[in-house]
Amino acid sequence: MRPSGRQADAPREIRLTREYTKHAEGSVLIEFGDTKVLCNASIEEGVPRWLRGKGQGWVTAEYGMLPRATHTRGAREAARGKQGGRTLEIQRLIGRSLRAAVDLKKLGEYTITVDCDVIQADGGTRTAAITGGCVALIDAIHYLQRKKKIKTDPFRQLVASISVGVYRGTPVVDLDYIEDSSADTDLNVVMTGEGGLIEVQGTAEKAAFSRVELDAMLDLAERAGQQLFAHQREALGLI
Amino acid sequence: MRPSGRQADAPREIRLTREYTKHAEGSVLIEFGDTKVLCNASIEEGVPRWLRGKGQGWVTAEYGMLPRATHTRGAREAARGKQGGRTLEIQRLIGRSLRAAVDLKKLGEYTITVDCDVIQADGGTRTAAITGGCVALIDAIHYLQRKKKIKTDPFRQLVASISVGVYRGTPVVDLDYIEDSSADTDLNVVMTGEGGLIEVQGTAEKAAFSRVELDAMLDLAERAGQQLFAHQREALGLI
Amino acid sequence: MRPSGRQADAPREIRLTREYTKHAEGSVLIEFGDTKVLCNASIEEGVPRWLRGKGQGWVTAEYGMLPRATHTRGAREAARGKQGGRTLEIQRLIGRSLRAAVDLKKLGEYTITVDCDVIQADGGTRTAAITGGCVALIDAIHYLQRKKKIKTDPFRQLVASISVGVYRGTPVVDLDYIEDSSADTDLNVVMTGEGGLIEVQGTAEKAAFSRVELDAMLDLAERAGQQLFAHQREALGLI
Amino acid sequence: MRPSGRQADAPREIRLTREYTKHAEGSVLIEFGDTKVLCNASIEEGVPRWLRGKGQGWVTAEYGMLPRATHTRGAREAARGKQGGRTLEIQRLIGRSLRAAVDLKKLGEYTITVDCDVIQADGGTRTAAITGGCVALIDAIHYLQRKKKIKTDPFRQLVASISVGVYRGTPVVDLDYIEDSSADTDLNVVMTGEGGLIEVQGTAEKAAFSRVELDAMLDLAERAGQQLFAHQREALGLI
Amino acid sequence: MRPSGRQADAPREIRLTREYTKHAEGSVLIEFGDTKVLCNASIEEGVPRWLRGKGQGWVTAEYGMLPRATHTRGAREAARGKQGGRTLEIQRLIGRSLRAAVDLKKLGEYTITVDCDVIQADGGTRTAAITGGCVALIDAIHYLQRKKKIKTDPFRQLVASISVGVYRGTPVVDLDYIEDSSADTDLNVVMTGEGGLIEVQGTAEKAAFSRVELDAMLDLAERAGQQLFAHQREALGLI
Amino acid sequence: MRPSGRQADAPREIRLTREYTKHAEGSVLIEFGDTKVLCNASIEEGVPRWLRGKGQGWVTAEYGMLPRATHTRGAREAARGKQGGRTLEIQRLIGRSLRAAVDLKKLGEYTITVDCDVIQADGGTRTAAITGGCVALIDAIHYLQRKKKIKTDPFRQLVASISVGVYRGTPVVDLDYIEDSSADTDLNVVMTGEGGLIEVQGTAEKAAFSRVELDAMLDLAERAGQQLFAHQREALGLI
Repeated sequence: MRPSGRQADAPREIRLTREYTKHAEGSVLIEFGDTKVLCNASIEEGVPRWLRGKGQGWVTAEYGMLPRATHTRGAREAARGKQGGRTLEIQRLIGRSLRAAVDLKKLGEYTITVDCDVIQADGGTRTAAITGGCVALIDAIHYLQRKKKIKTDPFRQLVASISVGVYRGTPVVDLDYIEDSSADTDLNVVMTGEGGLIEVQGTAEKAAFSRVELDAMLDLAERAGQQLFAHQREALGLI
Repeated sequence: MRPSGRQADAPREIRLTREYTKHAEGSVLIEFGDTKVLCNASIEEGVPRWLRGKGQGWVTAEYGMLPRATHTRGAREAARGKQGGRTLEIQRLIGRSLRAAVDLKKLGEYTITVDCDVIQADGGTRTAAITGGCVALIDAIHYLQRKKKIKTDPFRQLVASISVGVYRGTPVVDLDYIEDSSADTDLNVVMTGEGGLIEVQGTAEKAAFSRVELDAMLDLAERAGQQLFAHQREALGLI
Repeated sequence: MRPSGRQADAPREIRLTREYTKHAEGSVLIEFGDTKVLCNASIEEGVPRWLRGKGQGWVTAEYGMLPRATHTRGAREAARGKQGGRTLEIQRLIGRSLRAAVDLKKLGEYTITVDCDVIQADGGTRTAAITGGCVALIDAIHYLQRKKKIKTDPFRQLVASISVGVYRGTPVVDLDYIEDSSADTDLNVVMTGEGGLIEVQGTAEKAAFSRVELDAMLDLAERAGQQLFAHQREALGLI
Repeated sequence: MRPSGRQADAPREIRLTREYTKHAEGSVLIEFGDTKVLCNASIEEGVPRWLRGKGQGWVTAEYGMLPRATHTRGAREAARGKQGGRTLEIQRLIGRSLRAAVDLKKLGEYTITVDCDVIQADGGTRTAAITGGCVALIDAIHYLQRKKKIKTDPFRQLVASISVGVYRGTPVVDLDYIEDSSADTDLNVVMTGEGGLIEVQGTAEKAAFSRVELDAMLDLAERAGQQLFAHQREALGLI
Repeated sequence: MRPSGRQADAPREIRLTREYTKHAEGSVLIEFGDTKVLCNASIEEGVPRWLRGKGQGWVTAEYGMLPRATHTRGAREAARGKQGGRTLEIQRLIGRSLRAAVDLKKLGEYTITVDCDVIQADGGTRTAAITGGCVALIDAIHYLQRKKKIKTDPFRQLVASISVGVYRGTPVVDLDYIEDSSADTDLNVVMTGEGGLIEVQGTAEKAAFSRVELDAMLDLAERAGQQLFAHQREALGLI
Repeated sequence: MRPSGRQADAPREIRLTREYTKHAEGSVLIEFGDTKVLCNASIEEGVPRWLRGKGQGWVTAEYGMLPRATHTRGAREAARGKQGGRTLEIQRLIGRSLRAAVDLKKLGEYTITVDCDVIQADGGTRTAAITGGCVALIDAIHYLQRKKKIKTDPFRQLVASISVGVYRGTPVVDLDYIEDSSADTDLNVVMTGEGGLIEVQGTAEKAAFSRVELDAMLDLAERAGQQLFAHQREALGLI
């Protein structure tokens, strides 16, 4: 029995709110239950130095948590003078994942930065950030098209992510904080709308896990993925 | 004529939403028109080293802007490795202002940190932060009282803040971004519910200002202050 | 009765020594009683990146305290690895104030940096820095003119600053350390030689202050300002 | 055909040299072909602040690359003033993996830090670091036992790691630099000597990968794992 | 012929001004010609962590240059966020040298920090800092004795320093900036009042130097040392 | 009697291994007994900003210690966020010394960085680094010549370094850690193959030293220098 009363294969309620703030070219608030992440996609002309002159664009991500997004206040990273290892690891994951959604060669020499800032955390912030960030990214691409900055369509495929884990011996999907903090295994899966895998990051928190458990978790993730893509398509009016 | 069509003495629409996030002991979203600041008050046991053993508490504030709270994306301070001078100046101002609302001796050895994070900026973020932060601070104090952590009431007085300025030769109140970026003078005023002044910070952006202009601006601020205190009282159910 | 025996409207003895060091284009030691600040103005060709190509110059300031300028030794900011919030706040104030003395468009593409380093502190270091820094800045402008680097005169007006406060219930001018550390209110005023206000920064250290007290303090500041401008003019041989 | 001429399921030659340096309680040079990583395990009394008084120990890891371990010189992280995101991500992975080898409760209040420094890089440095670091960690545990510092045996299981990937459409094991830099998919697997999985980190570098490809890669990793555990056992004289 | 017209064995005019600032327990302005260094000795109770409980004291030094102490403005180290290699090297040298003046066991658990800040630079700032810093240190020791904080006398011997070099083929003493920037060899010598050597740091700037040249330089340094000790004794009233 | 049983004038066994790693243009492992330093010389096109357009090259060095190169683990400088004063001082010394081996004008606009990383420390790491770094530097120069990047030969002279000291009253050469940590005096000497001195850095660790002792130490260093140059020539096949 899950603390939330959810079925093993039931993700939390997912909500995507576009145009959540007014300045960003793409601005999406994504909610996985009580986890709330604001994903703002910003377009800047030009690309990082190591890409200049190659006629392609760049997509990157940054991740942050408001100090009191969590149960106890965490020190502000700007005040501590550096981003922690967890933050860097997560924002590298988000960036790699979102680049899979885009054909950088068709993007032109633009950089799109997707800022994922956690307003409230209840487990699964990185998977929510990828899922919501993809929608913000697409909105930013549409902005470039609408403004006639680019002529071809750099969009390749939807990208979404969900966590799965083994909680008290049972594989479950979309762990909330209570489950996450006592799960045996934690697996984050990033998938494409076309059925492929982009990232699989599994960690044995307590005991090692088996190939059988891994398979069961991946099955759960794939099923939940279909729901995520449906939410993304609905939010984007693609249905 | 103001760009927004407002009268010279008309502040923007002000909204205060309490319990905006679920973890913080006080959590207030304040909106001054399109300026939105999330003010989370967190209680921690103990006080900074230099106050230990004095039997008193401490109130402090931190301020941040989400990278795309503004028209163009600003570099994330956590990634740059330090808080900028503007950030430090603003959070020092917020902290000093909020301490005026509290009798630190009656607070006991608790530290209340008020995090003011700007979700969307349209001028006046520091004044909104002080005004909303005061309500979050009071909610945190009520939390301590409800939990029987403190017995006496450390609340002293309401504190609120508004900006005034000289825009195209006319004193106006609560400048939005368009006004702020072309104003001759910018004055931030922090007031108490009992009619006193806590902070007065005026800067001639273009031309020097006169004592007469200063007086006119202070008059506007005092009048707007009455509206701010009414909003705070209403939000707190003090009426 | 003030600890120093001064009248409420009497500033400390003010001394300005030009050409205090030999390398800087403008070098002024300013003394407000026992407060001693060395103000060195340095000229560099070029302007910050964001001003390039606009055909104008830039004036900025940096502020520092020698570790033992104060009663107890403060940690060296270079060793701690960052400038503190107070330092950044003060140097931003000095920079804004000194820019009011100059027509940046007439300065040409030069940057003048005014370093204000406190050799000995006894209250009022920021006001001394602004008052002395203005003279160093003017010497640097004269250097540019003497060397035929610029043809028009970018000097606009004298800028000077003084602190006022409410000490034991009475408004007084130019607070020394003893007064400053127990004053109810502290107000720093930056004025122009032509009678205008550039900055007004008032803080209630203990109790809130009233409009009447603010007016009394501003009156004192304006009167002291006349003496500051006289000292600046005499030092510069402008009389 | 692999550039090295290896079969798809053939790892590079693996060498483990114990007591490589003389000061560390465990010191192992591990070579995966031309990849050479020095793994030094250091024992310190006490545990991090957040573990104090819980009667348990701690195992952590740090990772670094000598600036010219790679084809082109990389900037020294100590000179740049911070560890990069890749470094932090890798050392967090190593630390988590090595903690699976130990029963921290039986370790007593000791901290074992395993420093993994890459002397020469040719792909697979993190997997070599985990595999060699485990042997250094065990040597450090033996040191504690030999010195009678601990009485029970905190060793739980061997931990080793290998990379697998899809290179030109074919799943291959233990990618060297040439393969790694052009692989479609890169998967790092951390396993226990008892057949469990500790970490699975797969990334689609170019195209998404399928469940079928994931399974094929995991099969390869498990087979190579048996060879790694044999090398560890032989080096430790456990056979 | 030296640019200054000095004889090869003639140091510049040396001036020592005690009680230069009012807060420090020892405060000395030392001038070697146009080189001016303010040496402030500060006493703090306690010693660094690694010396606690050993019943001895500690003497350390910090060194800084005002940004415009030199011909062209140098970036402020506090603003750059770290002390440069040259600064650290010099302050380590000053600290080691000054510790030779004191019996740390007799100092008691006090730390004396000698801040050496260069007001104006014209070559030889580190040698001036050591020579002046020794007098400030002795004044701080006298302060401890006068206040009855320590009973025995920790003073061991005078310490002073001078630079020597080979300028255009000729060994000369106390190089000023013009000589220093074109000298073949630069040697800084730290000596005790009893004739011993504390530090000898010689660097071939252009061509290698010979044992014969080294001897000639050391002879010059020893002779100048006698003058330095005479200046120190006179300043301290020890004659 | 020396702890190692060596004669006063006997350096430890010296070994130079070229081509120790495969990527660097020059890669030398140098051993002075148990002290092992890896010296990698890397060639990069271009020179630092302040040398651009002068038609000359640059040689620089960086120094690091693996955290457990020493008896007790030292904090990783990359993790602490800065290089310590000792590190900076040593790498500046190595860089200056190695530049004496090369005619920078004949090097062309190339920068050669010599990374000296201490794998195991037992005293004398900086002298080993200079001696081994010189061989790596020469290999890098040969690489440039072999690749026809430069036409003239920028090699000027061999540079090597040894430590000498006064241990229990007797001058001895090439101190190991035990001697170094209790020596009265420590002197590092950098010499050229042609008999000149490049650097002489002597420090009185306990008691001051005399000119007579200095002479005796320099004699020892010069004799050991001949052995170092013989090792370098043999390693380079110059005999």
